[in-house]
Amino acid sequence: MTAGAPRKAGRRWKAKVSARDQLLMAASSLMIEKETIDIPLGEIAQRAGLNSALVSYYFGGKEGLLMALAKRDTAQAIREMDALMATDLGPEAKLRKHLAGIINFNFHYPYMTRLIHLLLRDPESENSREITEVFTGPVTRAQAKMLDEGMAAGVFRKIDPVLFYFSSVGACDYLFWGGSALRFVFGHQKIDDDMRRRFIDHMVELVLHGCLAKPEKNDG
Amino acid sequence: MTAGAPRKAGRRWKAKVSARDQLLMAASSLMIEKETIDIPLGEIAQRAGLNSALVSYYFGGKEGLLMALAKRDTAQAIREMDALMATDLGPEAKLRKHLAGIINFNFHYPYMTRLIHLLLRDPESENSREITEVFTGPVTRAQAKMLDEGMAAGVFRKIDPVLFYFSSVGACDYLFWGGSALRFVFGHQKIDDDMRRRFIDHMVELVLHGCLAKPEKNDG
Repeated sequence: MTAGAPRKAGRRWKAKVSARDQLLMAASSLMIEKETIDIPLGEIAQRAGLNSALVSYYFGGKEGLLMALAKRDTAQAIREMDALMATDLGPEAKLRKHLAGIINFNFHYPYMTRLIHLLLRDPESENSREITEVFTGPVTRAQAKMLDEGMAAGVFRKIDPVLFYFSSVGACDYLFWGGSALRFVFGHQKIDDDMRRRFIDHMVELVLHGCLAKPEKNDG
Repeated sequence: MTAGAPRKAGRRWKAKVSARDQLLMAASSLMIEKETIDIPLGEIAQRAGLNSALVSYYFGGKEGLLMALAKRDTAQAIREMDALMATDLGPEAKLRKHLAGIINFNFHYPYMTRLIHLLLRDPESENSREITEVFTGPVTRAQAKMLDEGMAAGVFRKIDPVLFYFSSVGACDYLFWGGSALRFVFGHQKIDDDMRRRFIDHMVELVLHGCLAKPEKNDG
């Protein structure tokens, strides 16, 4: 996404973007604006200023476009995660930044949890296999390594990486799903930047202290 | 009336169950067996030994049947949660049992997270409003009260109940979603009873220690 975008994303830049990428950009921005992943293909093509037949040409159809979008957005996040894991930060600092990374990812691509859940809806499907390959696999491997480092250093208690994956990703995920609960129960209309920051703090407190070796016994 | 009435549940019992409840029971057991919520109405009616026109009659259609099933299953869980919260257990013990309750609920109704997510897919819809009324509302109020008690007793640190709701429910939820990740990444085929128990222990460790006041500083 960052690659070669000049100052104000002007015409010169757009001209360099392939029709395929233009369709993905249009789908992404429409999903953000409309707060739904159910955008008619015609509307996506229209926003991109392209013929809707190109969606079939490039992606084979709606499902293919959704998968391509999920791959585009997760690829960048996975690169950032891998870069973080390759630093020589300690396991605690890595965990903090990793949690913030997941939340920021969901914040910047608010359609992503719905998109991934849709693509995973049939656990036996090719889509499921592909999402686990490009997303779940890399995340679980990175987390397992981070937990191992932390356990080896005596910083983290013994933690099952499989259970950690589901609990940490699920915990960071559900807020971005639960728009209706936010609205109807809590009276919030939007996840704004303040809420994003508070959520990162909350998750770091919760998960980090949940992971530390020998938390103070307070069991009464 | 043909479809195999389970031998041990007995005909006498079946005779007392209304056609409406028979349809819900059939939908529930088919969703568990087939590991999907996409069950054709005809198949549900056939399993119940009833005419599929009765689905329209009782529920107005598929979406209505799914909502009725979600309400039936959550009602029982909410009653149990309310009973727990009414005990004079301390906030820590309540939190432990509450987390176990969410996980057990997901374990016994493995279709429930998909069902609720489906019904919540449009945050503005009547379905969303109804789910938040029967499920999200009661859970968030119970959690807020439990956290308040714990904070007042000095057992819990200051915790935002809104953020706690999304992180705790999401963390307990995602494992039951992520069948494909379990399969493709971790090589598990099923969430069995052993995994259920380990997941409860994991979540209690993670969330409880994340909530306790003054966890040991280990920030290096």
